[in-house]
Amino acid sequence: MNLLLVEPEEVDAHGEVTVRGPRAAHLVSVLRVREGQSVRAGVVDGAIGHADVRSVESGRVRLALRLGDVPPRPPIDLVLAVPRPKVLKRLWAPLASLGVGRIWLTNAEKVERFYFDSHAVQPDTWRPRLVEGLAQAKDTRLPAVEVHKSLKILVEDHLEAADARRILADPELDRGAYETLAGTAPGRRVILALGPEGGWTPYERDLFLRHGFVGVGLGPRILRLDTAAIALLAMAHEALASR
Amino acid sequence: MNLLLVEPEEVDAHGEVTVRGPRAAHLVSVLRVREGQSVRAGVVDGAIGHADVRSVESGRVRLALRLGDVPPRPPIDLVLAVPRPKVLKRLWAPLASLGVGRIWLTNAEKVERFYFDSHAVQPDTWRPRLVEGLAQAKDTRLPAVEVHKSLKILVEDHLEAADARRILADPELDRGAYETLAGTAPGRRVILALGPEGGWTPYERDLFLRHGFVGVGLGPRILRLDTAAIALLAMAHEALASR
Repeated sequence: MNLLLVEPEEVDAHGEVTVRGPRAAHLVSVLRVREGQSVRAGVVDGAIGHADVRSVESGRVRLALRLGDVPPRPPIDLVLAVPRPKVLKRLWAPLASLGVGRIWLTNAEKVERFYFDSHAVQPDTWRPRLVEGLAQAKDTRLPAVEVHKSLKILVEDHLEAADARRILADPELDRGAYETLAGTAPGRRVILALGPEGGWTPYERDLFLRHGFVGVGLGPRILRLDTAAIALLAMAHEALASR
Repeated sequence: MNLLLVEPEEVDAHGEVTVRGPRAAHLVSVLRVREGQSVRAGVVDGAIGHADVRSVESGRVRLALRLGDVPPRPPIDLVLAVPRPKVLKRLWAPLASLGVGRIWLTNAEKVERFYFDSHAVQPDTWRPRLVEGLAQAKDTRLPAVEVHKSLKILVEDHLEAADARRILADPELDRGAYETLAGTAPGRRVILALGPEGGWTPYERDLFLRHGFVGVGLGPRILRLDTAAIALLAMAHEALASR
C-alpha cells in the first residue's frame, strides 16, 4: 500500500476519516505512523494528497485529509475477452496498477459462457482488487468496468463512437505494438483490444478492422491472456509517454 | 499447451515417446488427436519440430518425434531480487513464456531471509512451471536458474564477466526502458535487473552502476515486482526485435 485510499462516504464533514482493518494494520504495523505524522492519501476516484494522523488507537487510525487535484484518467482503455475466472481474478489489481481508464469485458466466440456467471466478473470481486492496484500504484482513478455479452454491439455502438486510436492485439501480425502506439497523436486516447486464449475468430477480427482498429503483434510467442494484457498495457503507457 | 514438450530421458532409441497424465489428457480431450495426425513438439531445452501420433490408448499416447533445430536461447537474462514466495511461484510460467535465457535470483537488503527457505525457490517448484510457460509460448529453451545469497558476489564475479548490455530498473529514473533497450547493438545480449518490493538500497544501486549497469525507469506508477518483471521483459523483447 503506497497510497492510503478511502471511499468518499468514509470522509466526514470536517474532511476526517477513521480507518480500521487492513488499512489501519498497515499504517500501524508497516508504516508505524504516529500522531502528527502524515501519509500519502487519496479518495477512490477522487482527489489525491496527504492525510495527517490525528490519533492511533488499537485497530483504528483517525486522519485529516489534505487533498489536492483529481489525477487525470489514464489515457488507455481496454477491451478484454473475458478470461477464465481464476485468471481474471488475478488480473484486476495489475491492470489498475498499470493504469487503465475503462475496462470493457466482452464475450467472444471462444469465451466460455459460464465465465459470465463467475464471481470474477462481479463488482464485489473487482472493486476491492482494482482499489488494491490503485493503492499500489499511488493512483486514485478507478477504472470503469462494463460487461458486454455481445461483441458486435460493443464494437458498433460503443467503441465506434469513442474518439480514440483503436489497436487490436493480433498474434498473427508482426507490426510492432510499441512503434505503432508511439505514433499516436499527443493527447489522443487509445483503446487496446485483447482476444481470448484461443484468439479472435476471422469474423471477430474483421469486425474490429471494419471499425477502425489497427492490428499489432506481440511477437512470435503465444502468451497467456493475463501476461499479454500486462505486457501490452505497459508497452502502451511507455509508448504514449514518449509522445 | 501450444507445444508438446517431452524430457530428453522420455525419448527412446527410436525417437519415440509415450506420454501419460496431463499431456496425454490434453492431446486426447483438447486437441482430439488420432493415429496418423501430427502435433508440434519439442524436447525440453532441445530441438523443436513435430510428433506423429502412433497410437492413442486410454490415458496414454505414443508418438514418433520429427525434430529440427534447437531454437536460439532468448537474448535476455534477468536478475531478480527474490520476491515473496506466493508471487515468485506465479511468476515462473510467465517469465518462461515471455522468454528468458537465465534467471539469477538474488538476495538484497529488502528481501526477507525466509524467502530462501520457501518451496518457490526449489527446482521441484520452478522446473515444471518453467516448462509450462515454454509449452504455452512454443519454445523449448529452459531458462537456467541460479540462486545467489550475496548480491555483491553475483554482481562482481558473475555479471561483470558477462558480455552483455546491463540494465537496472529504477523507479526513480525517467529514462525510458524501451528507447534505451532499442539502442542495444544487434546480437548483443541484455541483462535486466529488478529490485525487491521496497527497492534497492543506495548501496545496492551504486553497486550495479559501478559495474556497468544503466538505470531505466518504468514510469511514475509503483508496480508489484511480478507486474514490473512481465512489463520490462516484454518491453525488452519488443525493443530488441526492433533492432
